[in-house]
Parts: sequence; structure tokens; C-alpha cells
Amino acid sequence: MRYPIHLRKVIEALKRLPGVGSKSAERFAFQLLTWQPEHLEEIAGLLKNIPDKLKHCTECGCLIGEETCSFCDEKRCSTGALCIISSSRDAFAIEETREYKGLYHVLGGLLSPMEGFGPDRLNLNKLKHRIKTLKIREVVIALDSTLEGDATSLYIKRELDTLGISISRLAFGLPMGSSLDYVDGGTLARALSARAKF
Amino acid sequence: MRYPIHLRKVIEALKRLPGVGSKSAERFAFQLLTWQPEHLEEIAGLLKNIPDKLKHCTECGCLIGEETCSFCDEKRCSTGALCIISSSRDAFAIEETREYKGLYHVLGGLLSPMEGFGPDRLNLNKLKHRIKTLKIREVVIALDSTLEGDATSLYIKRELDTLGISISRLAFGLPMGSSLDYVDGGTLARALSARAKF
Repeated sequence: MRYPIHLRKVIEALKRLPGVGSKSAERFAFQLLTWQPEHLEEIAGLLKNIPDKLKHCTECGCLIGEETCSFCDEKRCSTGALCIISSSRDAFAIEETREYKGLYHVLGGLLSPMEGFGPDRLNLNKLKHRIKTLKIREVVIALDSTLEGDATSLYIKRELDTLGISISRLAFGLPMGSSLDYVDGGTLARALSARAKF
Repeated sequence: MRYPIHLRKVIEALKRLPGVGSKSAERFAFQLLTWQPEHLEEIAGLLKNIPDKLKHCTECGCLIGEETCSFCDEKRCSTGALCIISSSRDAFAIEETREYKGLYHVLGGLLSPMEGFGPDRLNLNKLKHRIKTLKIREVVIALDSTLEGDATSLYIKRELDTLGISISRLAFGLPMGSSLDYVDGGTLARALSARAKF
């Protein structure tokens, strides 16, 4: 006995969400069956309107609602700092820390030959153009500490080195609240080599 | 910096799915931002049409697509067996085993005073009516082995005892492939008390 066709279609659509396999999608779908029609219409409308209501700033690539980009304002410009991130989501995480007040630049991905994301996709000409026109003095590379993040950071650093600006990258070390017993060797090695005067 | 309003609404809607908290909902929402508009429209249409396309059989409560209920056919009637389940999803799991060929009866929930699901919500009059009109000879109670499942099973058994039909409940014991080291005490106790001649 197979599920009715419409249910199978709903399950297939839900499986496109990250980390959602058949079992989770089935669980979601069967719970959706219990939702009130108005709730289903509400979520349907919200999903359908995503492309209209949520756009990315053509300048920095950050997410904007229906107003102008709040990551591109005058005050941030005046700091002379530009933070390079891979996705628009990262800007919100960095804002949360309240440690950074400058501008952002969203790459849209990390170098990954396996996924066909090559250097051309990074669109570094646009980045260089922004650095020049905005008179950026410091670039902060805030990319993942993964193979792809390392490769992308190194590539960007080499490309920007000739511009004569300060380039930094997020520090590596022990995460807060971690115990040495549980920290992996790679993290410990990086924390050691980057040890700071205390 | 808060997320744009539409994104917050999408996140709130996704959090209504079972087991989806803020973090998962955010992850889903940000991935939805990368979907093609036609994929978003497709999932929106599928969700909106759930009430139209997926109905529950007025007789047994099982899920039906656009055709008639395939859980209520003549052949199943002739077995004289009726399996009591709490949700329409359970029928698919039981069908999968190919061990049962009879009819189903969906309760729609389990007794739970905490959630305000009382005996009246079980609608046992309808169940009794079906047992009589369909000339059911055996009732199989296939409810969870939880506190609520136990209470509901016991309540149903007492209500049906006067009808003079055979009433059974799913067996309890070790799940397949389990090791005694990892089985909890409750399961082991039930497996012992229900030990079968070998």
C-alpha cells in the first residue's frame, strides 16, 4: 500500500530541505495533514512570496527585506572595514557578536572544484572594485575553517595583497567552554601555534 | 540586526513542523532563499492543496487520495478482523509488514488527560457500530507501548469486552536485532513475562 500520490509529492518536496531524509519528510507530511487549512495557506503564501519579499543587496549581497540594505549605510562605510563572508546568513551571526561595525561582502559560496565552484564564481573583480571605491582599509576574511574555507581565504588574500590594505582572518583556537579532552587534534595544534601572550 | 520580517514569518511557520526548533527552521529558511521560484511555487501549491487532495475515509479514518478508500474493500471485510490504530499513518506501517489483511479503525489520538484528549474523543460508539455491522470477529489493538497507549488499550478492551469478540494487542518484547545489554529494563521485564515456548 503506497501513500496517496499527493502525499508522495509533498514528501518529495520536503526532502529538498537540508538534512531532511525520507523519514523526517514523512513525519512532516503527516503532521501537515493535521494542520488547519488556513495555516497551510499561510505557509504556502509565505514560501511562494520568498522571491518577491526577500532580495539580496546588489551592492554587498546581504539579505534585505522590503526596505533598503541596512548593511550598506554611511556609518558602516566610515569604518573603512569590509568583512568577507560566504553567505548572507553569516552577516547576522557576526552582527550578533556586536564586535564588528563595518561593511560586508557576500561571496555566495566557497571554492570547491568538486561542486564546480571555481575562482570565477567568487567575482573578485567586484570585490576589488568595492575596496577601491569605498576606500576600504581593512579586510576581515570570515570564512569557514574547512578545506574550502582555507583555500578560498588563501586565494582572496593573494588576489588582494597588491592593494596595500590590511587583511586579517578570524582567529582559530579553542571554542569557548571547551575541554582539552574533547578538542580535536587539528584545533589544538592551531590553538598552540597561534598562542597569544597572556 | 534582526532578520527581515518575511524571513521571520517563514521561520515561525516552519517551527510548527514536528521536531523543528529555531535553529533548524533558520537553516530551512535560508536554504529556501536559494530555491528557484518555480520550486517554491510548487511546494506552496502542494501544501495549499493538502486539504483538497488528501482526505480521511469517513468510514475507517484512513487516508485516501482522490479515489475511494482502499482500506475498506470487500476482501478486507471478509477477514472479520479490525485493527485499531491511533493515526492514519500506522495503517501504512502495518500494511508494509504484510502480516495483516483486515480492516482498520483510526482513533485519531490516544487518551491523554494532559492534552485534553478524553474518552469521548475516542468515539467508541462508532467503533462498536462498525464491529456490529461489519460482523467483526477479531479486534487487534495496535497502539503505542506508552502510558497513553496502555491506558487507551485497556479502556477499549473494557468497552468491547461485552461484545463477545476476540481482542488482542500487539506483542511486547525485544525489538529485532537488539542486544540484551542495551535493552531497557521495562522491555526486558515485558519480554520475560510474555516468554513463549521455544
